[in-house]
Amino acid sequence: MEYKELNRESVLNYLKDIKKVMDYFGGDDLSAVEIGDGNLNYVYKISSIKNPKKALILKQAVPYLRCVGEEFPLGRERMTYEIRALQKFYSIFPNFIPVVYYASEDMSLVVMEFLDNHIIMRKGLINRVIYENFSEHISTYMAAMLFYTSSLSLSSSEKRELIDKFNGNTELCKLTEDLVFSFPFMEHETNDNENVKDNPDAKKLFSDMEFKEKVLELKYKFMTQNDALLHGDLHTGSIMINENETYVIDPEFAFVGPFGFDVGALLANLVNNYIHHSIVTHDEMYQEWLLKIIKEFLEKFSEKFLNFWQKTHNSGLLVDGYLDDITLQNYKNKFIKNILRDSVGYAGCKMARRVYGVAGVEEIRGIKDKTLRAKAEALALKIAREFVLKHEKIENADEILEIIKSAR
Amino acid sequence: MEYKELNRESVLNYLKDIKKVMDYFGGDDLSAVEIGDGNLNYVYKISSIKNPKKALILKQAVPYLRCVGEEFPLGRERMTYEIRALQKFYSIFPNFIPVVYYASEDMSLVVMEFLDNHIIMRKGLINRVIYENFSEHISTYMAAMLFYTSSLSLSSSEKRELIDKFNGNTELCKLTEDLVFSFPFMEHETNDNENVKDNPDAKKLFSDMEFKEKVLELKYKFMTQNDALLHGDLHTGSIMINENETYVIDPEFAFVGPFGFDVGALLANLVNNYIHHSIVTHDEMYQEWLLKIIKEFLEKFSEKFLNFWQKTHNSGLLVDGYLDDITLQNYKNKFIKNILRDSVGYAGCKMARRVYGVAGVEEIRGIKDKTLRAKAEALALKIAREFVLKHEKIENADEILEIIKSAR
Repeated sequence: MEYKELNRESVLNYLKDIKKVMDYFGGDDLSAVEIGDGNLNYVYKISSIKNPKKALILKQAVPYLRCVGEEFPLGRERMTYEIRALQKFYSIFPNFIPVVYYASEDMSLVVMEFLDNHIIMRKGLINRVIYENFSEHISTYMAAMLFYTSSLSLSSSEKRELIDKFNGNTELCKLTEDLVFSFPFMEHETNDNENVKDNPDAKKLFSDMEFKEKVLELKYKFMTQNDALLHGDLHTGSIMINENETYVIDPEFAFVGPFGFDVGALLANLVNNYIHHSIVTHDEMYQEWLLKIIKEFLEKFSEKFLNFWQKTHNSGLLVDGYLDDITLQNYKNKFIKNILRDSVGYAGCKMARRVYGVAGVEEIRGIKDKTLRAKAEALALKIAREFVLKHEKIENADEILEIIKSAR
Repeated sequence: MEYKELNRESVLNYLKDIKKVMDYFGGDDLSAVEIGDGNLNYVYKISSIKNPKKALILKQAVPYLRCVGEEFPLGRERMTYEIRALQKFYSIFPNFIPVVYYASEDMSLVVMEFLDNHIIMRKGLINRVIYENFSEHISTYMAAMLFYTSSLSLSSSEKRELIDKFNGNTELCKLTEDLVFSFPFMEHETNDNENVKDNPDAKKLFSDMEFKEKVLELKYKFMTQNDALLHGDLHTGSIMINENETYVIDPEFAFVGPFGFDVGALLANLVNNYIHHSIVTHDEMYQEWLLKIIKEFLEKFSEKFLNFWQKTHNSGLLVDGYLDDITLQNYKNKFIKNILRDSVGYAGCKMARRVYGVAGVEEIRGIKDKTLRAKAEALALKIAREFVLKHEKIENADEILEIIKSAR
């Protein structure tokens, strides 16, 4: 079917021909409400009129940046990669991915489970909600997705097929290259220039060549290292959560890239939340809890990644019997430590780019009091700098916590 | 046109419809002779009967390993990548690539310049021919090909298009993964098992876990690091040479991989030739010349790569003005040193795999006297081991020569 932008009326008409969706609603009359608060796409909630709890989500990409308008073109092909990533991730470990009822790459749309008992994790964290199961869930998600889409698990040809499927996500990869690794660290029109202007901290950052050179090394790795299929934008706004369940959504930035990038993105966002509470709410208990889940998530991630590896005997990389058991274990331990190190490096880039770059996070840019916001920014930059400069020497999660705590 | 295997008769008929080829011969009557001594493909020399010096080469891939027969299938798509690589390399720097007159991916064939004044470099080196221009030529070739197909030169989207074009060369990449990095270092049916059997040196190699773990790290990088478009099999048998000209041929293993792999392949083959002369001919002067061109080629490669970089101001990686001049130079110097280090690591893998692996080199496996051959093998393994274990600490070309010389 040829691409056509849907609206609140035509969306119901469109769905009439999709059997799996009609089956879900069992013949009920339907209503559609636009609920998207996103910047990029149109999102409709489709519900049964008789039984409004019976509902699905329809998300359609338009060929421009929705929050700006048609004068800011952005290829709707991003939905192609979101669909492929949702399906791939679901096939590996369905627990953490919304069920997809229907998807069309031609129409750039996906119909999926409506998560009505869940909120965006960032909001929960700002409101100091404790999620006891989060580190367990997210470490399984990350270990499974990264391990089972890597050359440690796939055959050489399966890996190349995976790369083929995601290599075309050029436009969104380029956004990351520019907006995470380059523009936020130099004078640029996309920055939050109201804050940059006459700001000595911004000036210091832009001329911090030691930091920027390391960021460039991490950018090069981002552009050239195809370890595994990444979500590509795994901040706490891409997680829907409640006390029992964790869902990872919106993988439109998905591509085959370096292991540490997703892990680092999440680490960065947890630390940004920690900074918020240390400057704004002063809730020491919540900060302790955040440090605890950072440690848990990183340690469990490593453990689970190694467990998946333990169960895998042949892959593109490893021919069974090539190494003896001791050497193999040694190799694996070094391997996972390198993932941790890269993650810390990427976390540093991701934290720093939120300070003056185009896309801030609510925890920091949302602080209304300018003095407090400047304090939070300075703390974020301090931790980010330590992460970036020291990441290659990190030995374990405790050293990461030490950097965070001693920066205050 | 649908694929059809050509023979000595049908090849002339096929060429009748190809204007550029017919123009080259200017209406002369043609003859075809099969001249291929290759293992993989059919190669015909097409000449004018009136003027036999007027000649072109037609090379066609068949969907099996030619030297074994139809019972060993090997996708003829390898010619697709050879064609694409020849065209890409030619577009960057035509001096070192044969002119392509016609190519058809459907027919898996290419018609190109006949290099009648050139010999396979390996034969020249065995016969102790001095090529005064070689290091100048090959360093330009390598620096240009690697730099201008990397993210240091291409935009983010150009790089992804390049990956797209070569990502499908799965079968030949897999051959390298198995036959360069894995099977030659363990008991395997593909090895030269007549030599492996009851050979204490082979036993020692197969149980050398320190060496094999490092090889595994290099294999992982080969599989996941997409720095630049590689030839993929750049040994001295892939170079046609005379005193004035150097041509690089047969890029059917081409793919986007780590910078150091091609440089390392050539280094390995020059060192293998050095070993041959140090064990067999004892020609000290020729050995000195070999060491001299190794040093020259590596140093000139680095210098030219940096020169190309100096002329490039915007790329996928670098936004102009992001770093100050001193830091940028520092970054570039570290970058090129890392290429050198990887090259030494890959050279070690490539030397070691020639000893017991399926594909030997004439310089070593061709030594008829078994005692001398064993001596050459031991020397190759000794240098290879040093290369692999020490490559991450190499500072310059002199340290590489030192390893080679002190191993004797």
